[in-house]
Amino acid sequence: MSIRDVASFAAGHWIAPDKTAREIASAITGEVIARAGTARLDTQAMLDHARTVGGPALRAMTFHDRARMLKGVAQHLEANKHLLYDLSFDTGATQGDHLFDVDGGIGTTFVFASKGRREMPDSHVYCDGPVEHLSRHGSFLGQHICVPLQGVAVHINAFNFPVWGMLEKLAPTLLAGVPAIVKPATSTCYVTEAAVRLMLDSGLLPAGAVQLVSGGLGDMLDRLTCQDVVSFTGSSTTAHKLRQTPALVANSVRFVAEQDSLNASILGPDVLPDTEEFDLFLKEVQREMTTKAGQKCTAIRRILVPQAQVDAVIDGLRAALQGVTIGDPRAPETRMGALVSAAQKRDVLQRAAQIGTEATRVFGDPDAFAVVGADKDRGAFVPPMLFHCPDPDQAIHVHETEVFGPVSTVMGYRDLDHAVALANRGQGSLVASLITADPAVARDVTLNIAAYHGRVYINNATSMKEATGHGAPLPHMVHGGPGRAGGGEELGGLRAVKHYMQRTAVQGSPEILSAITGTWIPEGPEYTTPDHPFTRRFGQLRIGETLHTKPRQVTSADITQFAQFTGDTFYAHMDDDAAARNPFFPGRVAHGYLLLSFAAGLFVQPDEGPVLANTGLDSLRFMKPVQPGDSIKVRLTVKAKTPRNADYGEVRWHVSLRNQNDALVAEYELLTMVAR
Amino acid sequence: MSIRDVASFAAGHWIAPDKTAREIASAITGEVIARAGTARLDTQAMLDHARTVGGPALRAMTFHDRARMLKGVAQHLEANKHLLYDLSFDTGATQGDHLFDVDGGIGTTFVFASKGRREMPDSHVYCDGPVEHLSRHGSFLGQHICVPLQGVAVHINAFNFPVWGMLEKLAPTLLAGVPAIVKPATSTCYVTEAAVRLMLDSGLLPAGAVQLVSGGLGDMLDRLTCQDVVSFTGSSTTAHKLRQTPALVANSVRFVAEQDSLNASILGPDVLPDTEEFDLFLKEVQREMTTKAGQKCTAIRRILVPQAQVDAVIDGLRAALQGVTIGDPRAPETRMGALVSAAQKRDVLQRAAQIGTEATRVFGDPDAFAVVGADKDRGAFVPPMLFHCPDPDQAIHVHETEVFGPVSTVMGYRDLDHAVALANRGQGSLVASLITADPAVARDVTLNIAAYHGRVYINNATSMKEATGHGAPLPHMVHGGPGRAGGGEELGGLRAVKHYMQRTAVQGSPEILSAITGTWIPEGPEYTTPDHPFTRRFGQLRIGETLHTKPRQVTSADITQFAQFTGDTFYAHMDDDAAARNPFFPGRVAHGYLLLSFAAGLFVQPDEGPVLANTGLDSLRFMKPVQPGDSIKVRLTVKAKTPRNADYGEVRWHVSLRNQNDALVAEYELLTMVAR
Repeated sequence: MSIRDVASFAAGHWIAPDKTAREIASAITGEVIARAGTARLDTQAMLDHARTVGGPALRAMTFHDRARMLKGVAQHLEANKHLLYDLSFDTGATQGDHLFDVDGGIGTTFVFASKGRREMPDSHVYCDGPVEHLSRHGSFLGQHICVPLQGVAVHINAFNFPVWGMLEKLAPTLLAGVPAIVKPATSTCYVTEAAVRLMLDSGLLPAGAVQLVSGGLGDMLDRLTCQDVVSFTGSSTTAHKLRQTPALVANSVRFVAEQDSLNASILGPDVLPDTEEFDLFLKEVQREMTTKAGQKCTAIRRILVPQAQVDAVIDGLRAALQGVTIGDPRAPETRMGALVSAAQKRDVLQRAAQIGTEATRVFGDPDAFAVVGADKDRGAFVPPMLFHCPDPDQAIHVHETEVFGPVSTVMGYRDLDHAVALANRGQGSLVASLITADPAVARDVTLNIAAYHGRVYINNATSMKEATGHGAPLPHMVHGGPGRAGGGEELGGLRAVKHYMQRTAVQGSPEILSAITGTWIPEGPEYTTPDHPFTRRFGQLRIGETLHTKPRQVTSADITQFAQFTGDTFYAHMDDDAAARNPFFPGRVAHGYLLLSFAAGLFVQPDEGPVLANTGLDSLRFMKPVQPGDSIKVRLTVKAKTPRNADYGEVRWHVSLRNQNDALVAEYELLTMVAR
Repeated sequence: MSIRDVASFAAGHWIAPDKTAREIASAITGEVIARAGTARLDTQAMLDHARTVGGPALRAMTFHDRARMLKGVAQHLEANKHLLYDLSFDTGATQGDHLFDVDGGIGTTFVFASKGRREMPDSHVYCDGPVEHLSRHGSFLGQHICVPLQGVAVHINAFNFPVWGMLEKLAPTLLAGVPAIVKPATSTCYVTEAAVRLMLDSGLLPAGAVQLVSGGLGDMLDRLTCQDVVSFTGSSTTAHKLRQTPALVANSVRFVAEQDSLNASILGPDVLPDTEEFDLFLKEVQREMTTKAGQKCTAIRRILVPQAQVDAVIDGLRAALQGVTIGDPRAPETRMGALVSAAQKRDVLQRAAQIGTEATRVFGDPDAFAVVGADKDRGAFVPPMLFHCPDPDQAIHVHETEVFGPVSTVMGYRDLDHAVALANRGQGSLVASLITADPAVARDVTLNIAAYHGRVYINNATSMKEATGHGAPLPHMVHGGPGRAGGGEELGGLRAVKHYMQRTAVQGSPEILSAITGTWIPEGPEYTTPDHPFTRRFGQLRIGETLHTKPRQVTSADITQFAQFTGDTFYAHMDDDAAARNPFFPGRVAHGYLLLSFAAGLFVQPDEGPVLANTGLDSLRFMKPVQPGDSIKVRLTVKAKTPRNADYGEVRWHVSLRNQNDALVAEYELLTMVAR
């Protein structure tokens, strides 16, 4: 078997490894299969390329453009993912593990592509929150916007998920409009390199958008500025060192860290043996211990169970772990592969021994276990090892020493307060799970552990069929945790995109803010055309284009007729005295829905035309009651436009209703689909 | 005059200064007026007091409880603010400056109190964003929540705003539910101490909620954990040192920094001399140079003007600065007081000399200027000094050396790209302003400088009457900036509150999430009562309480009648063929507002009762058209409850409409006020 040269992709060129390269061995056979690393990397040229070529190209695209690009990249990876599977076995990963890494990474990219289209505008500025009213007469307002940073994102990834680990950072970065330099862990970088080649082959990424460092980063971090971001996944020791790089401190470079975590899983006090929830708990623990041979930052390291259930849980887990076949990941019967390397195996055994000073091993003997289809002594195999810690209050290692392998410790708790205290002993974790059917237990535990955890996963018989698993970070939900876990946040939908953008408070007149955000702001300038806006196509409608209707009087007869027709005979509309007793009304008032309906009657252009449908309405507020004899008139203004497909787009209209005294009666936003 | 002993407030006790105390001199007379500092501070006891007494007491309160507490504290400060004015003159501040510091601080507290009531729930959990749908059948969902950190916030404040500087950090911290230890800069800590005494005198703060360190912090930072936050305002040198405190790095302690900033103000290329905007520009610059004698992190340090306007701007600023009377802040004619101390004066003169190596001083001579009502040689007086830098591309100090006094530099720019490049040479600033009447200029500049700035302030003749000033951070808008400015964010409404909370992704079944958030989630359990929910008072209604109505058929006659009555004769409701040509409809369909109105007719209980008014509606979406002959039925569920005053509260109902096949037709949230 030939040794694979794993190249870097720098400033548009592939750079092969040189004589300074590090050798990479197969996790299964121990044989050298690849080499990576070069002294010829020009880090400044890479940064310049990203900043002057990749960044401007990405920023010239809209959020929707970039979302479409991500979708295309994900489709290309999906079509070629077997290539990544094939390579990944040598990292020790099974086909089941590939689903998390390869398919998980591609799925994450699809979700960001979708969220980019659905939750962001088709433009260059993202509005963060509503307009802030800073003045009495509305001539001076505030709006927070997010724009892409003008630098580069340096992604330093861990070895365990060479594909997902790259894509979960890359998708939000590219969606934000920021180029990235990806530096995978060397031990599995051959898989990442293959994924990068596929992405580049798609032809969808602009030059400079993605670069790759296979091997060491050199002095790159010393060259970062206030427009750059470092996103790091790995050990806390490395994180602490990198975080203090003088240039990062001096320039306040954003440093997102996801490091060590001793995640707990709590069996609720309501869950007894031989119930669906008890079996569910055993299954979750077994899966988290053995997936990726426990090399998962979210794996369950601490198993917290009611004191009375300790024995039953240990028995149940013994039985479950007994059934896990260890061996060559390519063999179909294998359920757990190898650790990534011999060095990792040494590390795991050494740390497991530390746990052993405080806890008794109740399952798994590293000196006596079976391996199928592979040479146990050449591959980095270890068995799942379960410990029981009898005195978790006094113990330290079980709460602080992360064994990055298939190792976990059972601890008994006295009551919920004790379980909470033990969970929080992790001093900041990525995730804690809780198996309970009792909503009160869920609330109590969550409110007390949430401050120490980035994610709380609760499962029971109701949700188990659809639950996604304790250890699975989802693109929709934040991944990260305080304290020991690094204090960083990744994923979580648009929250992740914002890590690569600057949030800026913009203040100015409605006209100025509207020009910046591409969204009409009440009190901003209005435009009129000779044609009714309902006769104009999506592309013709202009932000701020406005229709003023004539007034319509609302009579007592109207209100009565509406009440009888709809059945809404609520007393405030029917009974003058009862209405007057109400703190909000001077007497009988028109129905809110009557006003909405009359408003539509006033502004609608009835003929067949480009307006296709009213799809919804947002933020309706009734400000002032309308009494019999009052009249209403309507102002209808194009507030925002979002293309939806080749045929039509969404037009969001601002609608305000005023009475005969020009007082605001109601305000809302109306959604329509309009043909392009 | 006696020397004031400035005490610390630690673990419930006032600790007077001891022999290690530092002396504090009047900025005006140079005489020692106070002393602060003690070696007897037990930092661990202070932290323990906050963590075990203050934190639990604050967390037992709801967001609304804490908002009411803030309002009361602000009212007490407002009633006694003259005491703070009296003390503040000795810091060199004028009565005009007190409005920024004292009134600004109190106003900020009022805004947070108000936002806490309006924008947060009356409970212990804040929901961050909507429910995330993680499963096909809806049995497993996600919701991000924010809960208070369980530690303490250590606020390290700058000397320039002894009241506002404390309150702008304290208000969001307390609203979040986190106790604080306030450490003001020693040189003005006597004002802060007086403000803390007033707050404690209000009797509204629970024990342990606020402590005060007058003097040095000792080893406090070495004792912080993952549940604590440091929020620092001051020099970048100090920030960099503190940021690298080993305990902060090891425990990923949040460190919010607001440090140096060389803010620019840009005169738009469209603005010519002798226009309203030109005068506005001169006024903004003059005010920013002289307020607080230029000791403001947001002051204008760099004045960027079109090359052709350099002379006119210098002439205009000379005239404006000429009119600034310098002297004893207590004298009514004084417009600019003194710097805070002799040391600060030395620092300002030294840094101004550095600017002088690259720029020519065109106004203000530190060796020749008039001071009224005070001894120029004893007080820390300097004149406003204006520089002109002829080659800003080559210059370094003008972009990098912050002179924390009334000093600013005029630079000419060639075109907008040049102006943008110069503004961004600050390498991260708190604020940039732009005076322009041209929306296109505003958009171009903003999109290109926003990534380098925490705030962009745009002003012109339209907004000038209500604009709040280049240098004024507002509680509604983010204050902070990237890079040199520290990379931190403060203020910005709820954004600031979240800095003191942990955001946690919670996953579980609808019932579980609902129990945790106190908000009903569609697909969650429903409760029914024998009574119609409209007959039940605010306190009786239960989250999840549901009414199912009988169905009502929608006939062709109904649609026609509604169209004629309301005037909404849109073709999709009237013309079968035209509607069928539309991509959304199979043929003629009912009006959306007809459905809303019929729905109200189905679920309303008409008799006078606790439901007072329909105040609004949110997130209405029409999912499926309703054709003549279809029927609709309604499910009405209590989703959330928010008390508004002693008489009534807001009930948010989830409403869903289904047709005869049980398919979802429309969904929305209805807002009502219900009597308590």
